[in-house]
Amino acid sequence: MNASSDHVRIVEVGPRDGLQNERAPLPAEVKIALIDRLSATGLETIEATSFVSPKWVPQLADAAEVYRGIRKVPGVSYPVLVPNLQGYERARAVGAAEVAVFTAASEAFNRRNVNASIDESIERFVPVLERARADGVAVRGYVSTVLGCPYQGEVPVGDVVRVARRLHELGCHEVSLGDTIGVGTPAKARAMLRAVAQEVPMATLAVHFHDTYGQALANILACLEEGVRVVDSAVSGTGGCPYAKGATGNVASEDVVYMLHGMGLHTGVDLDLLVATGAWLAAQLHKETASRVTRARTAA
Amino acid sequence: MNASSDHVRIVEVGPRDGLQNERAPLPAEVKIALIDRLSATGLETIEATSFVSPKWVPQLADAAEVYRGIRKVPGVSYPVLVPNLQGYERARAVGAAEVAVFTAASEAFNRRNVNASIDESIERFVPVLERARADGVAVRGYVSTVLGCPYQGEVPVGDVVRVARRLHELGCHEVSLGDTIGVGTPAKARAMLRAVAQEVPMATLAVHFHDTYGQALANILACLEEGVRVVDSAVSGTGGCPYAKGATGNVASEDVVYMLHGMGLHTGVDLDLLVATGAWLAAQLHKETASRVTRARTAA
Repeated sequence: MNASSDHVRIVEVGPRDGLQNERAPLPAEVKIALIDRLSATGLETIEATSFVSPKWVPQLADAAEVYRGIRKVPGVSYPVLVPNLQGYERARAVGAAEVAVFTAASEAFNRRNVNASIDESIERFVPVLERARADGVAVRGYVSTVLGCPYQGEVPVGDVVRVARRLHELGCHEVSLGDTIGVGTPAKARAMLRAVAQEVPMATLAVHFHDTYGQALANILACLEEGVRVVDSAVSGTGGCPYAKGATGNVASEDVVYMLHGMGLHTGVDLDLLVATGAWLAAQLHKETASRVTRARTAA
Repeated sequence: MNASSDHVRIVEVGPRDGLQNERAPLPAEVKIALIDRLSATGLETIEATSFVSPKWVPQLADAAEVYRGIRKVPGVSYPVLVPNLQGYERARAVGAAEVAVFTAASEAFNRRNVNASIDESIERFVPVLERARADGVAVRGYVSTVLGCPYQGEVPVGDVVRVARRLHELGCHEVSLGDTIGVGTPAKARAMLRAVAQEVPMATLAVHFHDTYGQALANILACLEEGVRVVDSAVSGTGGCPYAKGATGNVASEDVVYMLHGMGLHTGVDLDLLVATGAWLAAQLHKETASRVTRARTAA
């Protein structure tokens, strides 16, 4: 982690969080080409795929093939999502050196999403975190629905704090706070982050916004002002939201990088290469890019 | 003007700045229906049309018919754009009670846009402002290209300050600072506004962002933090940008109002009615709405 105040690390989640919510699945070789292109942009972290059961996420059933196929550029991390110890072992079998686990801040969401209470799903991580520690594998923790839930509505900040603290205590080197349904606004995002940062060091926190209501960049700005320096995003803004049809997905990496660079913050990312990658991915998906920067830059 | 710190006045510019840049012109009766719908949402200010020559803006050649046709709701202002004294007189002939004048902070832009230097175009306003003062007509001033110019690139902040101060001194009750090509980012927007506010009272300033690079809401947030309380926006995010094909237009009013209300700020606008109006307008224009809130709220 780079803790200098003018460096922001982008965690590119497009190949995982983006593509797992796209209707048209991409062939493994296209996913590999995507990640290789992303590696060339200067990104430091690229979430490559998910070892969740293909029954749940058929779009990423080729996780092993994709992970094996990508060029691992020295200095770039390629974490993969794992739901439990079995997924962890599948990920390790292909050489994954960093993994991510996930739970929700909303009890209702967690029950519908993984058919378990939050505490039960955290218990499933415990052996993953123990094994990872023994293996020297870094574990990232995701907390979803931090600013709202499609089932229970409001999510108390205290619930977010409790889950984030638990993931931190269990050994997650980083905890990513996700507004899964994109309903948050800047003051709420700021208050949530501030509350979590009272219990978990800011340097170990990341923010993860979906742009469903167009609020993502404003929320990121508010969180940067609070001191966060790790931001999740997806090239070309891929990913729908399965809970709100027609809604847009992850905030587009291009738009985040454009904002950060415009503010004098550094990411190490070559925006031109990122825009070219986003335009290429949109063509592969046969859809218009959700990145406004890429749309403006590639307009005829 | 409401100067209380938790009230933000939205200046709805869709019927003018939005529609003047839409390729498919709408019939006058649809424009009238649009403004009447907007009047019912609780908006305090709706820029109704433009009395610029139809040679320049054929989309709004029906300005007189539209202005005459709209229902003037007590308490709502319906300013119209005027380029010079002749336009002012046409506007007054149909009863306009508030007008707006415009110039650029970029010399290169102003020359291409109105074939005059900034100083020359300001000179054209002087008789408009004199007449307006005598008539008791409020005049809003627009400064465009405050964060960048398609011809000269960077626009020095000092140039923005100079033009904004001149409009204020000439008697404009409000000066709207516009990022015409949407290239600005929050730190630059904040620095620009701060510099202007040292010379022109913050309570008389408005901000006007286009969402070409997706930065509009983040820029608005930064400007709200600086103290601005008047924000221009266009329902459904109408308007292209003639200088960047395929680029998006004004920031969508729905997305601004969603953010403001989520932050505990008041606008007096009924968001449900605004979303319904945005969806209706998008249907009239036969295009997808550019408002993410409207897209999310109206998704099947």
